[in-house]
Amino acid sequence: MPEVKSIFEPKVVALVGSSIIRERVGMTSPHMFANVVYNMTKFFTGETHVVDLEGEKGVKTIDKVPHRPELAVVMLPPRNTIEQVEKGAKRGIEAFILLTGGFKNAQRKQLSDLMREYGIRILGPNTIMGVVNTANGLNTTFERDVMPPRGNISVVSQSGGVGACLLDWACYYGVGVSKFAFMGDKIDVDDIDLLRYFEKDPNTKVVCFYVEGVEKGREFIEAAKEVVKTKPVLALKGGVTREAAKRALSHTASVAGSDVVFDAAFKKAGIIRVEDVEQLLDSAVALSKQHALKGDNIAIVSNVGGPAILAADAIVRNGLKLATLSEKTRLQIEKKFPGVEAVNPIDLIADARTDRYSFVLDAVLSDSNVDGVMVINMLKSTFFEPEDALAVVETAARHSDKPVVDVPAGGEDYALVQKVLRDTSMPVYNLPEKAARALRVLRLYGKIKEKGVEVQCR
Amino acid sequence: MPEVKSIFEPKVVALVGSSIIRERVGMTSPHMFANVVYNMTKFFTGETHVVDLEGEKGVKTIDKVPHRPELAVVMLPPRNTIEQVEKGAKRGIEAFILLTGGFKNAQRKQLSDLMREYGIRILGPNTIMGVVNTANGLNTTFERDVMPPRGNISVVSQSGGVGACLLDWACYYGVGVSKFAFMGDKIDVDDIDLLRYFEKDPNTKVVCFYVEGVEKGREFIEAAKEVVKTKPVLALKGGVTREAAKRALSHTASVAGSDVVFDAAFKKAGIIRVEDVEQLLDSAVALSKQHALKGDNIAIVSNVGGPAILAADAIVRNGLKLATLSEKTRLQIEKKFPGVEAVNPIDLIADARTDRYSFVLDAVLSDSNVDGVMVINMLKSTFFEPEDALAVVETAARHSDKPVVDVPAGGEDYALVQKVLRDTSMPVYNLPEKAARALRVLRLYGKIKEKGVEVQCR
Repeated sequence: MPEVKSIFEPKVVALVGSSIIRERVGMTSPHMFANVVYNMTKFFTGETHVVDLEGEKGVKTIDKVPHRPELAVVMLPPRNTIEQVEKGAKRGIEAFILLTGGFKNAQRKQLSDLMREYGIRILGPNTIMGVVNTANGLNTTFERDVMPPRGNISVVSQSGGVGACLLDWACYYGVGVSKFAFMGDKIDVDDIDLLRYFEKDPNTKVVCFYVEGVEKGREFIEAAKEVVKTKPVLALKGGVTREAAKRALSHTASVAGSDVVFDAAFKKAGIIRVEDVEQLLDSAVALSKQHALKGDNIAIVSNVGGPAILAADAIVRNGLKLATLSEKTRLQIEKKFPGVEAVNPIDLIADARTDRYSFVLDAVLSDSNVDGVMVINMLKSTFFEPEDALAVVETAARHSDKPVVDVPAGGEDYALVQKVLRDTSMPVYNLPEKAARALRVLRLYGKIKEKGVEVQCR
Repeated sequence: MPEVKSIFEPKVVALVGSSIIRERVGMTSPHMFANVVYNMTKFFTGETHVVDLEGEKGVKTIDKVPHRPELAVVMLPPRNTIEQVEKGAKRGIEAFILLTGGFKNAQRKQLSDLMREYGIRILGPNTIMGVVNTANGLNTTFERDVMPPRGNISVVSQSGGVGACLLDWACYYGVGVSKFAFMGDKIDVDDIDLLRYFEKDPNTKVVCFYVEGVEKGREFIEAAKEVVKTKPVLALKGGVTREAAKRALSHTASVAGSDVVFDAAFKKAGIIRVEDVEQLLDSAVALSKQHALKGDNIAIVSNVGGPAILAADAIVRNGLKLATLSEKTRLQIEKKFPGVEAVNPIDLIADARTDRYSFVLDAVLSDSNVDGVMVINMLKSTFFEPEDALAVVETAARHSDKPVVDVPAGGEDYALVQKVLRDTSMPVYNLPEKAARALRVLRLYGKIKEKGVEVQCR
């Protein structure tokens, strides 16, 4: 079987739909078709050919596309889809993304037969949104202009809805994405194929999964074990409770399996498990921008008192420790800034700006008792300005082996600082509790790399 | 001692500062003074008089204000503050908010002596941001234009930083606030005074506390026990872990106390404990807009599959149950909308809009097996439009004894729907996990009201 590479990295793509057919169950519609064409025309850097079955002008069937596409994106009812896949396979097209759903078992079998006969690869059917690749602008989603910024996080979702939520979140908060894949019914390309592809993909540094069930469990674990040696793998599991698992069964026809079994399997594989969409992307951002934590000792550097205390609580709750600063560090800071008590969590006082943050962060990161730092820089009730946060980025970059995360705690405060930092190497969180959870994941990945995979991953 | 009413509901206010004095430790500055004057001039509906100790024109001392103020807001170094409080007390001013800090013990005693001598009330010193009352526009914060929308949630913070974070969050996400109070050094007005004031305040429906330590623990518990019979009280506790508690001690000079002791005390008092700033305000919004949950059985009504499964997980994780719909409800829905399988969580399918949401939500809320509902309405990958969410509000309002919460899961999706719903009676959350936590709090308060206070409050 050829690789799944053509699904993400085609040079020539055919978009196969209809400007007339509307079908409720499978979601085929002229609207969906028009929007996929819009996104591909706008973002894709390769060659796009539109095949409109009912179009008045242009190409009306896949085998009439002037150049041979490597990938065909098909959004038609099952019968028409199968017909176009067969014609395309004969024409030599290697890969197919089937967006629409509603396929009966017999129809799935027809697709499988075509796969075997022509050696093609199929993502779907029922992927709904298909794939995104920010490197070449490939975007088969039917939401206009939904395009996350470039980055090195790759995401796989078994559910269209959770995938759409993840994609929306990534776009809105500027999470840097490499590839996005909606898996759908998985008659061919599955979690394992995508995991192996991302392992070799130079644009992927972190892999995120939303899974409900995994069919070839053992094979998936073995594949993940290899991948996590070089790239962290995160998983959000749906259908955790018995009640939801029953529902997941009818949703994606996957046996969700007992939660304990999954926990053990993830642990064995070195996959880090998270609890919700926010934590999945928050953790991914930390892993994509910072090194893993080599120890448990965290320093907190803050311009406000109360939030630093909540941060200290959160650090300890997440299985990490409050670092004890060395005497040397303490004296160095207190000599330079009388009034600042250099006890962790360090309160820099409300009038701290770049010079104080840079000096103290530098001193703390140079201390061998410290493995990582949570910086808190609120704007409200302090003198800190959003651009001052760049000093945190610069200082942290000089000690890149020790992770640093930034917390402009609040609503507008977060939005203002996040705008300044989103394209830098600094992960930014709106509350210390979220930053602490991200640091915990950085530590888990540190342990996975040190000791092999079998660490507590939840 | 007179009530603390004058602190929140004065008709005439004196703002006492200096356009020259700048002091690092206590935060006195012309900038702070100018901003408090700006906010009060802009928002306060009563009469404001500015007293500038070093001003070239106007009043230079508190006893020269033409009308007698009920409240004086003082932002000066300790020595000047004491002088102005004494003059003000002699003049007959009842209440003082002291924003600045840096008071020595002897100076605190001088203030206490004045309190006793003149029967005045003092909030502070070191309250930093003082108070906000959205009903009369009283706003003594020194961040320009930081004014949350009107509502019925009242917030008390022991920490300036956490208070600023809460206030910023409330403004940014449009959380409807009644009163906000920063407590500072609590030489007079304390948690108990504020609790009792909020109990009687017709504009307060929910009370939120950020506490590090409570001095008169027993009295606080007794007061809370009474309050929670009519109004829910939420608490976020800082200094939970031993490490952070040590730090809290030096931060607000309060004995943070063991976490177990606090847990037991909160439980005894019927105070509902939360884990972070977001959960505090998320829970408060649910309590302020919806009734308490009378039972554990939650229905999920969604236009996407995967997020509904994550919602079901979250419901069960939060100690609630997935409701089993009655046969009647099931048939009613499936007859009206063939293709929709009316099993909880109910997947309305991606093309659901107002008619389907209204009908199904109405049927589900009429089912005696259902105590409350989580509605999920994503925009991405569906046909739902932000304004469609108003149908959810209207339908829920017809069954107001059963709480409903809404989840437009995601980033932009949440922002768009939240804009439509923020001034309605519907709490809105960006992820099902957060909505489930809010429902859990609605159930906790339901139990507190049913059985008295001693229920598991964490």
